[in-house]
Amino acid sequence: KRPRAAEKREWGVIKASEHSKNTVNPIRKIVDSLNVPHNPEKEPIRLNLGDPTVLGNLPPSDVAVQAMEDVIRGHKFDGYGPAVGAQCAREAVAKKFTHPNAPITADDVILASGCSHALEMAIVAIADPGENILVPNPGFPLYTTLCKPNGIETLSYNLKMEHGGIVDLVHLESLINDKTRAIIVNNPSNPTGVVFTKEHLEEILRLAYKHKLPIIADEIYGDLTYDGATFHPMATLSPQVPIISCDGIAKRYLVPGWRLGWVIVHDRFGALTEVKQGMVALSMKIVGPCALVQGALPRILQDTPQSFFDHIKEVLSANANAVYKSLSRIPGLKPLKPQGAMYMMIGFDDEIYGEETKLMQDLIREESVICLPGSAFNSPNWFRLVLTYPLEVTEEACERISEFCLRRLKLSKAYGPLKNT
Amino acid sequence: KRPRAAEKREWGVIKASEHSKNTVNPIRKIVDSLNVPHNPEKEPIRLNLGDPTVLGNLPPSDVAVQAMEDVIRGHKFDGYGPAVGAQCAREAVAKKFTHPNAPITADDVILASGCSHALEMAIVAIADPGENILVPNPGFPLYTTLCKPNGIETLSYNLKMEHGGIVDLVHLESLINDKTRAIIVNNPSNPTGVVFTKEHLEEILRLAYKHKLPIIADEIYGDLTYDGATFHPMATLSPQVPIISCDGIAKRYLVPGWRLGWVIVHDRFGALTEVKQGMVALSMKIVGPCALVQGALPRILQDTPQSFFDHIKEVLSANANAVYKSLSRIPGLKPLKPQGAMYMMIGFDDEIYGEETKLMQDLIREESVICLPGSAFNSPNWFRLVLTYPLEVTEEACERISEFCLRRLKLSKAYGPLKNT
Ligand SMILES: Cc1ncc(COP(=O)(O)O)c(C=O)c1O
Ligand SMILES: Cc1ncc(COP(=O)(O)O)c(C=O)c1O
Repeated sequence: KRPRAAEKREWGVIKASEHSKNTVNPIRKIVDSLNVPHNPEKEPIRLNLGDPTVLGNLPPSDVAVQAMEDVIRGHKFDGYGPAVGAQCAREAVAKKFTHPNAPITADDVILASGCSHALEMAIVAIADPGENILVPNPGFPLYTTLCKPNGIETLSYNLKMEHGGIVDLVHLESLINDKTRAIIVNNPSNPTGVVFTKEHLEEILRLAYKHKLPIIADEIYGDLTYDGATFHPMATLSPQVPIISCDGIAKRYLVPGWRLGWVIVHDRFGALTEVKQGMVALSMKIVGPCALVQGALPRILQDTPQSFFDHIKEVLSANANAVYKSLSRIPGLKPLKPQGAMYMMIGFDDEIYGEETKLMQDLIREESVICLPGSAFNSPNWFRLVLTYPLEVTEEACERISEFCLRRLKLSKAYGPLKNT
Repeated sequence: KRPRAAEKREWGVIKASEHSKNTVNPIRKIVDSLNVPHNPEKEPIRLNLGDPTVLGNLPPSDVAVQAMEDVIRGHKFDGYGPAVGAQCAREAVAKKFTHPNAPITADDVILASGCSHALEMAIVAIADPGENILVPNPGFPLYTTLCKPNGIETLSYNLKMEHGGIVDLVHLESLINDKTRAIIVNNPSNPTGVVFTKEHLEEILRLAYKHKLPIIADEIYGDLTYDGATFHPMATLSPQVPIISCDGIAKRYLVPGWRLGWVIVHDRFGALTEVKQGMVALSMKIVGPCALVQGALPRILQDTPQSFFDHIKEVLSANANAVYKSLSRIPGLKPLKPQGAMYMMIGFDDEIYGEETKLMQDLIREESVICLPGSAFNSPNWFRLVLTYPLEVTEEACERISEFCLRRLKLSKAYGPLKNT
């Protein structure tokens, strides 16, 4: 039944809340801008999707699958559990991640509906409207998506993209003011794939210590590192700073859709007692993540064989090296060599290649290769590609990118810089 | 390493946000108050837990279990899906709940991490700080838990507990002011188990229409009705009012731990266009519920046999009638007969039985029967029990409650009213 015109007028459009209007993910708009027709003669290769499961070459471990099946048949996890998570699952996280320098128990763990939800709880528990949190730039856009609707400002500190993607500490320190509540550190980093050294992490910790700022450590990629890099959980280093580590099984266990994450509260100096209570309170809103996955978590964390992780790292390393080798030969392209996470950033000379969204659109139109423009991470003149595809697919993509670039290069030599066209 | 005292002082306790401090669930405190020793000679019977799965007598359907297993083996739902939910799952919800008077498509459905999360999205998308939403009293305390930290006030409209638990429409209308953004209607009701008639729902709709207020319909118990009562989805009745229906598989499919819910937006007169966009935006924060359960949803909704629901309803009806028969014989007890959901409220004369929390504590101490005091729902002189246990357990509980009450009754006759003791 279509309403009569009078009824329509009578009701008008009900306004949405400011909160919902301020909930914005820039990636959405950018992904929409990539919605251009690809070259019909070439199979599309989607290097834009940060989802390791899309091609099916990296399935979850048998351990995880079997654990889920047993939980479903066992009927011990069909009911409501505690909002902070099932005791056995919290214990499993504590057991897996406790460290002599950063001992934790189940009490320090709050389960979440993915690392996204873990980040939401940490952010919302620590800052009030009008306060601010420092976030990396380029960085994962969700931090701002979560802060902004709550009236929490994000101040972006630069990663030195021309110097290995490390934190510009001078810039970071210059942003800190009396409204600053926390620093978000994402290591290994999305989008750069850079893994910070112990020394660099300690420099960041010294700044946090000096300014008495807790750190929200987004460690979702954890020890998914390769080519000799080592992951250091921030909580294990010195100086000791109160740290809220946000993590989950999405990436290392290759099950992003299972939506299980957690917060680990390293409550140094008793500084986080109230914030932890705050997160416990926030967990009541949606009563914890899927209990079935919680029930499977102990076995997933304890029994997944090292060979499973080794295989992922081999795939990542092979991809990273292939892309690096292929694209660093192209004039005006500057790949940043990654050693962790699942991504790689390629810088480019805009004098030669022009503006990035247009460039990425043309790459789709001509070569059916889809990459994410750096603007998704606030990083113009860069684009990101994922490293989780079968090597031959990645190599094919690199060839196409190379040919595309070489065509541009000729054009630019013939007609001068493309920048303003 | 324990921090040195100086370090401890240096950091101080970091303040938690106002938002997290205002996230309060009154049930928690009340449940804590029930933490008194039970009678060691009697096995505890926990009629306080709103979880039908605790005793194992009501397992989920084979269809649901099999669907989950197939999804886990099929590896089509390990990855990220759209934040609003997988298309097939949204379509399944639309197909199941579309109605000639209230036609919907997949576009009108947003999946959520349980009905709790559906309610959160609806509430946060529709009201700004300083505005208010009307909620039932007695009612599900989560509404206030979700509103308050966002600065949204809840105004409680009375259910006429002495008159079958229907809405006091005069009271409801008296609360509406220019800051009112929506009315939450929970039917069938937690905690009363009352199912509103078509005529009563239409009275509520007329009020909503008159004041141009959309309704958030918490229909999580849906057609879980018995003893001749019929459930009418509010969106199917007239006058047509913009309705956001919040629902999920927790209760009717006996899988509260699976954490799958949804919002259906009945966007009459185009009134909810922006609010719907707002909810779509909010869904990005935690990127949808567990994809495995989403993948199983089409089969769960389509293939669960009627016999499964019939069995639950038989259990509920048998329990409700046994409790009613047993406890309405006790002087000073006034059970409210339910016809839906999974609960029953028992009113009592405080002149005889005294204050409710003390009464419930004594019931635990003497009879090891645990019920929820009405204060959990803002309803003094009532207590709630669940109706999902095996009949013999419920009957045993009723006998114990009866004996307990009869002892009190004698005491009160001997010494006068207990109220002020
Ligand atoms: C840095 C970073 N943090 C958090 C997340 C979110 O993880 P989850 O899927 O567990 O919510 C992602 C996902 O891409 C990420 O890249
Ligand atoms: C009236 C009402 N609404 C919503 C919910 C929450 O449902 P879910 O477990 O799907 O979040 C409950 C749970 O008890 C309820 O009683």
